[in-house]
Order: sequence, then structure tokens, then C-alpha cells
Amino acid sequence: MQQIIDFILELDKLKGVTRKVRPLGLDRYENPAEHSWQIALLAASLVHHAASPVNLDRVIGMLLVHDIGEIDTGDTIAFAEGGWEERKAAELAAARRIFGILPDGQGARFLELWQEFESGETPEARFANAVDRAMPVLLNLANEGQSWRENGISHERVVRRVAPQIRAGCPALWTYLEARLDEEREKGWFGFA
Amino acid sequence: MQQIIDFILELDKLKGVTRKVRPLGLDRYENPAEHSWQIALLAASLVHHAASPVNLDRVIGMLLVHDIGEIDTGDTIAFAEGGWEERKAAELAAARRIFGILPDGQGARFLELWQEFESGETPEARFANAVDRAMPVLLNLANEGQSWRENGISHERVVRRVAPQIRAGCPALWTYLEARLDEEREKGWFGFA
Repeated sequence: MQQIIDFILELDKLKGVTRKVRPLGLDRYENPAEHSWQIALLAASLVHHAASPVNLDRVIGMLLVHDIGEIDTGDTIAFAEGGWEERKAAELAAARRIFGILPDGQGARFLELWQEFESGETPEARFANAVDRAMPVLLNLANEGQSWRENGISHERVVRRVAPQIRAGCPALWTYLEARLDEEREKGWFGFA
Repeated sequence: MQQIIDFILELDKLKGVTRKVRPLGLDRYENPAEHSWQIALLAASLVHHAASPVNLDRVIGMLLVHDIGEIDTGDTIAFAEGGWEERKAAELAAARRIFGILPDGQGARFLELWQEFESGETPEARFANAVDRAMPVLLNLANEGQSWRENGISHERVVRRVAPQIRAGCPALWTYLEARLDEEREKGWFGFA
């Protein structure tokens, strides 16, 4: 029991990691814990639009654990170029450390979900990745492009970064987002980097 | 698609609701979105200690939606006495409004999970309620009783408020917590109200 308690208190640290987007109407930045909650419910709401039939429970499991490595590494902005392999190796080491707090076997199941998400090879992982990429876009579309403007991210860079995954995992969502992103480009809600 | 987007952006408001406990090491108060994420993972970690075998996926579904009514009502402190029925009616109205944003049928599934949690009658709902009640206790035990001291909550009141649900849904967790609560009483980490 103590190992489980230690694990769940270790997870508390994810509430203190900051992402780049702010919740609507709030000054502070979003953290990966509340983000993970929100995309689990987005996945549950969108499941009938997945590119192929998926096991929703496994999708939700992946989404609940996918950001846990950021307890050690912090949120590395989704638009950073380069250094990708080093960051992923650091996140994997963090995931192993954190899931390793649990009693034998229990952590292995979480690590499998984490790795399935990262590999992005199953229909479930592709759908989970689509939902994860889409959420900050949806918030930015409702937030006058807050994190794009703050970080100097252009329309082209947003599209390059999110289109392949969203199209692969949830094509109907990409159709919706592509049109909305075009509309917002006219309004100047992007950076010019 | 627009109804699903409207729903998920409505959910964003839960990130701005404040609970009474603070995440470990942070000055701000916890919000129900990150709390819901954390207890979903606590349930997944504790499932072998549930009072009877449960369908974990339904437990997680319940925990992800159980606080959504607080978007309209705010967090009503768990230790408030009286006014219980009015608060629950207001939360139900809120849940109906929010899940009603979704296309036909989809909201009904979420509302069923919400109501199953509230009724607390199935093994899954009992386990989910146990996990929900236990999490702020675990944080307070790691936080020198922060929300108990701030709100003048006595040891007796904590036990009266959480023991029945935790014992019913996850007896091994209650055995652990009862001993820890007794230890902490010696240290004066409770209010005297």
C-alpha cells in the first residue's frame, strides 16, 4: 500500500508542470494533469470519429499516463525543432522511474500504455495522439491564438506539427480544424516565426 | 463536430474551479480537473484492493465525469453540514446541462456514469467514491493537514466524513489511512472546529 501512495504523491508533481497554453479565461498556464483529464474526455466524445474502430478504454489509459515523463523533464514545447530523440529518451527514463515506484507488475502495465502512445503504431495510439495534438489547437482557436502569439508560431508551423497525426487518427476532426485554422489566419492569430 | 468542440471547451471551466487542498509544494488550490486525473490513476493503481472485483474502465469513466457539475456550482467543501440535497440537485442540473451539449445519445452515457457515481450503489461506484474521498486525505497527510487547518476541521470530523465510504469501497486503504490519521493527530495537524 505504501508504494501505491508514494506513486500517487509523486504524480502530484505533474500539477506543477506548465504547458504553453492557458485555460480559457485564466491567467496561469495549463498543467499536464488537467490537460490529460480533458483529452481523456475529448477521446470519449470523439470516439465514433476515430479513423478506425478503437478500444476506448485503452485510449483513455494512454492519455492518462502519456505526459507523466514531464514530471522529470518539464513540458518541451510541441513546436521545438531538434533535440527530439534526447527529449524522448529522457521522458522514457522518467516514466520508468515513476512507474517503478509501484509494486511489481503494476508499473509495467502503465509503462506499456505509455510506450504504446509514444510508438503511435496501433489504431488506439494514433487516435490518442490525434486527440492530444488537437486539444491545444482547440484552446488556441478559442483563445485568439494565445500560445501561438506568445511563442511566435506561424500558421504553417502549426499545420506542419499537428496535421499528420490528427489526420491519421481522427480525419473528421482534421477537416474541421483545417477550415478553422484558415479562418483564424485571416485574423492574425499567429506568430510569424 | 461543433457540439463536441463546444462540450470540450465548456469542460475547460473546471480548471478554474478551486478545491480546498493545495497540490504539494504549490501555493494555489487544486482544481477538480487535475484531481479527477489523479484519482483515475489512483483507482487504476488500487484496483486489486477494491472491496469486490470491479470493472476498472467504468470506475475511471465515473471518476473523469464525477465533478463536472461543479462547473456551475463550484466546489462545496466536503465537510459542509446541511444543504446537501439542494447542492446535489444543483449539481445534477449542471451535469444535465453540460452533457446535453453533446449530440444525442453521447451525453446520456456520461450522465449515466455521473449518476452511478452519485448513487454509490454498485461495486464500481463504491470503489470510485472511496478513491475520491481518500485523495484529499492523502494530500493532507503529506501537507501537514493544510486544508484541515485552514478550515478548522477536526480529526473526528475527517474520520466521520470519509471512513464509511473508504471502508466500504477499499477496506485495505482505510486500514492504512486510519493508522496514519491517528499518527498525525498527535502532531496537531487538525483544526478544532
